[in-house]
Amino acid sequence: MKRNTKVSTAVIRRLPRYYRHLSELQESGVVRISSGALGKSMGLTASQIRQDLFCFGGFGQQGYGYKVDLLKEEIGEILGISRGHTLIVLGTGNLGRAIIQNFRFSANGFDLLAAFDIDPRVVGTRIAGVPVRHTDELEAFIAGNRVDVALLTVPIAAAQRMGDRLAAAGVRGIWNFTNYELACARQDVIVESVHFSDSLLALSYMISQQEGVEEEL
Amino acid sequence: MKRNTKVSTAVIRRLPRYYRHLSELQESGVVRISSGALGKSMGLTASQIRQDLFCFGGFGQQGYGYKVDLLKEEIGEILGISRGHTLIVLGTGNLGRAIIQNFRFSANGFDLLAAFDIDPRVVGTRIAGVPVRHTDELEAFIAGNRVDVALLTVPIAAAQRMGDRLAAAGVRGIWNFTNYELACARQDVIVESVHFSDSLLALSYMISQQEGVEEEL
Repeated sequence: MKRNTKVSTAVIRRLPRYYRHLSELQESGVVRISSGALGKSMGLTASQIRQDLFCFGGFGQQGYGYKVDLLKEEIGEILGISRGHTLIVLGTGNLGRAIIQNFRFSANGFDLLAAFDIDPRVVGTRIAGVPVRHTDELEAFIAGNRVDVALLTVPIAAAQRMGDRLAAAGVRGIWNFTNYELACARQDVIVESVHFSDSLLALSYMISQQEGVEEEL
Repeated sequence: MKRNTKVSTAVIRRLPRYYRHLSELQESGVVRISSGALGKSMGLTASQIRQDLFCFGGFGQQGYGYKVDLLKEEIGEILGISRGHTLIVLGTGNLGRAIIQNFRFSANGFDLLAAFDIDPRVVGTRIAGVPVRHTDELEAFIAGNRVDVALLTVPIAAAQRMGDRLAAAGVRGIWNFTNYELACARQDVIVESVHFSDSLLALSYMISQQEGVEEEL
């Protein structure tokens, strides 16, 4: 399917939220939803929803709303959920372990192939069924298996070196939890960083605004 | 200080990123930076940077750029970093433990007071110096201590019930890592959710776009 490839970052960032909300609606048994109702549940206006979805070629029918399952499927398609992407995890500290055990990789279209660590106490074991290999085997593993994304949760001092190794070995995306701004030599490797502090500071701002209002009352 | 309180969500979401980048520049010894250079390091245009910062009353001097320390301090002020916000952690599983051990709360203006759990093996212990109390003591603790934010990392089945308890007890913000969309009865309680899947699906989209380009070549 041919789509407008000039989609703004803001719209791209909203697509996973659409997918998540539609999944929840589907699980709740909702079959059809209006742009107004979908917007309300997501904190967006009906017209913003219609504009966003129009970027990707329409869907929906004036006056009838959207069919939840079809819209979810179509957005999932755009997000690449059905492409069979694969992933490995670098680092099995508390955070890596928590994500391996709790994150629903398959629901997001990812197949978690293996985890890597240097700690002899975990190498050779399995976490939630996922084999833990020694980091020395990283390049050989990537050479022998198609690895799309590497989740990086190593200590910050090792982050750049490991990022370089992953890029050189040929992964296409790095999902970066190290709180270190990876500089990637290869332009074609996409780095997506999760910064917990950005989220906490946004919350801090919103609370501070409330305090401001209270002080003025 | 009186500021324009009608600031868009997009600008608010960028403020923590400014703060993070300015902190890194400061640590690297950079004293002054142009809007162009700051934009480049953040993937924004110089004019977008000037517009964003103008929302909060200016800063900077035409042709001289921004003084890194002053701009960082001013943005930190807007974000409420100097307000002495306090935080508790609900749930000390792998994720809660990882965040308690590794997240720089004080650098983000938060004082981590205590953690809560129901597991008798951790109640009464300390994690990275932070005392772990029994969840039964939650309401009494909040009544006796000002608690601004509760980080929620309990199992998904307990999320809503715990969110309700926190709101009733009087916390002002919930930093939600449960992957459950909390419905908050109290309008004045702000819920900030961290959804790992939104980040992975954005990465999935970007990789899929590359595949699309490759297929067309």
